[in-house]
Amino acid sequence: MPSIQEALEVIQRGCDELLVEAELVEKLKSGRPLRVKAGFDPTAPDLHLGHTVLLNKMRQLQDLGHQAVFLIGDFTGMIGDPTGKNTTRPPLSPEQVEINARTYQAQVFKILDPEKTEVEFNSRWMGGMHAADMIKLAATHTVARMLERDDFSKRYTGGQPIAIHEFLYPLIQGYDSVALKADLELGGTDQKFNLLMGRELQKHYGQAPQCILTMPLLEGLDGVNKMSKSLGNYVGITDSPAEQFGKLMSVSDDLMWRYIELLSFESLTTIRQWRLEVEAGRNPRDIKVMFAQEIITRFHSRTDAEHALADFEARFRQGALPEEMPEFVLACPAEGLPVAALLKEAGLTASTSEALRMIQQGGVRLDGEKVADKRLLVASGTTVVAQVGKRKFARVTLSA
Amino acid sequence: MPSIQEALEVIQRGCDELLVEAELVEKLKSGRPLRVKAGFDPTAPDLHLGHTVLLNKMRQLQDLGHQAVFLIGDFTGMIGDPTGKNTTRPPLSPEQVEINARTYQAQVFKILDPEKTEVEFNSRWMGGMHAADMIKLAATHTVARMLERDDFSKRYTGGQPIAIHEFLYPLIQGYDSVALKADLELGGTDQKFNLLMGRELQKHYGQAPQCILTMPLLEGLDGVNKMSKSLGNYVGITDSPAEQFGKLMSVSDDLMWRYIELLSFESLTTIRQWRLEVEAGRNPRDIKVMFAQEIITRFHSRTDAEHALADFEARFRQGALPEEMPEFVLACPAEGLPVAALLKEAGLTASTSEALRMIQQGGVRLDGEKVADKRLLVASGTTVVAQVGKRKFARVTLSA
Repeated sequence: MPSIQEALEVIQRGCDELLVEAELVEKLKSGRPLRVKAGFDPTAPDLHLGHTVLLNKMRQLQDLGHQAVFLIGDFTGMIGDPTGKNTTRPPLSPEQVEINARTYQAQVFKILDPEKTEVEFNSRWMGGMHAADMIKLAATHTVARMLERDDFSKRYTGGQPIAIHEFLYPLIQGYDSVALKADLELGGTDQKFNLLMGRELQKHYGQAPQCILTMPLLEGLDGVNKMSKSLGNYVGITDSPAEQFGKLMSVSDDLMWRYIELLSFESLTTIRQWRLEVEAGRNPRDIKVMFAQEIITRFHSRTDAEHALADFEARFRQGALPEEMPEFVLACPAEGLPVAALLKEAGLTASTSEALRMIQQGGVRLDGEKVADKRLLVASGTTVVAQVGKRKFARVTLSA
Repeated sequence: MPSIQEALEVIQRGCDELLVEAELVEKLKSGRPLRVKAGFDPTAPDLHLGHTVLLNKMRQLQDLGHQAVFLIGDFTGMIGDPTGKNTTRPPLSPEQVEINARTYQAQVFKILDPEKTEVEFNSRWMGGMHAADMIKLAATHTVARMLERDDFSKRYTGGQPIAIHEFLYPLIQGYDSVALKADLELGGTDQKFNLLMGRELQKHYGQAPQCILTMPLLEGLDGVNKMSKSLGNYVGITDSPAEQFGKLMSVSDDLMWRYIELLSFESLTTIRQWRLEVEAGRNPRDIKVMFAQEIITRFHSRTDAEHALADFEARFRQGALPEEMPEFVLACPAEGLPVAALLKEAGLTASTSEALRMIQQGGVRLDGEKVADKRLLVASGTTVVAQVGKRKFARVTLSA
């Protein structure tokens, strides 16, 4: 068993903020397994590495002997967006929730230890709650306190509407901590306000308040924006081994260290050693390869990781790409150029319809990646190696 | 049957605001009995004339053929003040609600026609409501809209706390209109915001929106503050005939017309006639006597009204009071002088304990009214005629 001090070091690795450290030390001293809560949205079960930052922290806590409480917020998911304004949040049926929950579990148990994980759904206590109890819950906080939340405050002063039920959601999230008797709640930095609600409500309901641990939002592959599916700068947990490998090899050396800090399970000692080696002249690409191997092994298998590396090396290092190929600079609309148009304009196919057919047959690659979606837009300002069939190549730069 | 125009005149008599008149005309034209809602607080079943302004309007609407819906807001009454800060609002038990409701009905059916009155309790639909539906209800309005309510806006800008559940109460009151399919809701001027919620929510739930009719708050006997039990400037529905008579005779001539407008059932034609007579020199006291008789008849009986008048005349007009009596000016603490101390200091009793005994025996009067409560405090700055037994009198002024 690690000492309290060692446990704290593991817990705080990569974290943004721990409140209140002294309280957590007391809880750790008790020696009992702590209940570590994290809440997840039931509408988005396709996880990417950004989501795993939290899950990794939970896994580390499990390895320290604690109990993960994986909470699926299905109660609000089944309500959807009651204003009807956000069409991306239709109400989920109980069946959809269950399907999504299964998809979630298939993914998260690649990280979490199922033996030390309790999967919970907040509809269990919220579904049967009466309006009268919701009112009592609402009475525990003031409007002014709620308007302290950053986004509410900005929207209120900016004249953007805040529907009243939005004030109830942080209270529900906080009440979940009461229902679950959480000792510690994990969340993204942007969740701090909601995590504090849990503390406050636990006090109100006579429980010892949970500690909160916020984790930073992971930057996407671009190293600038947070990792997000809609920005396309993500590595999906269900991405193919080749995709994961290619994407992770593409990140900058700086971002590599950030990813390792938040995503690798290697010990801090090992990582410090790597840094020293790179400072002493070792090629950071070696570290990147080890890290990418670790990630593929986690979400696929050791064999997949080895194959992905071999393929990658075959294509990019052992010269599978021709040394010379035609080069084109193409005008590109702001939203990007459709891949079929790119192929035709670069002379790789005779027509757009031939290009579409080739894509459909799986015969088109961009930077060595097979193109699966014929609607793919290639971003302006980028340079790609386009390949049709085995032998036709072109290096295409899209003007910004 | 009165014409629409005549009905409108009755409906708008003494009212503060009618929204929307054109819509009400349409509803009246339909010829069907309208559902006229008014909500009452289940915690305060002791009605005074201030409360009857609304009830009178309901009665007038009943006389026009419409259906009164007397709503007792027991749902929130049974929640009480969930913040626990307002100790005057403890949660009511269902038994207390029922007792209070019976007390209410005993009083209101002195005004309303029971045949055309539906008594409702909003716990019927709110009690079974789930938190999820409360959330959907909350989603119908924005925080900014709620902060438009006068008192919320003042409290928010003044840094006074507003608990979040207070935003839910106007929504519940509005939802009551949906549940009751109200055509028209009556309320005090201070209720306008809440009445409008009913309109908005009915539209949201696909109903024709109710019209709203606000009635002014009745001034108390002082003619300045609104009538209220805590200010002591009220005429209670259950006050004795003598009390009602004495209190009503004490109001100023101006206030008398106001009371008549809002409290009398005499036709507007009769009242206009009275005004002409007073302008032509008739003593307004005659009108006051008729009005006081009407009120006592309504809440007690015609015989009681006649007795009250006879007693009053016997005491104050036929010289039951001595022409001359000793006069005293007594020092008086800010909170008022206990009546027993007053009697002793004015020499009407030999001691405070004799004074207390005389009160207990019913032998003490102030301004002709029997003193029932020996803890009564006489306010500083007032002059009263104190009487012990049949023959001992003193005129006592309490210095301010």
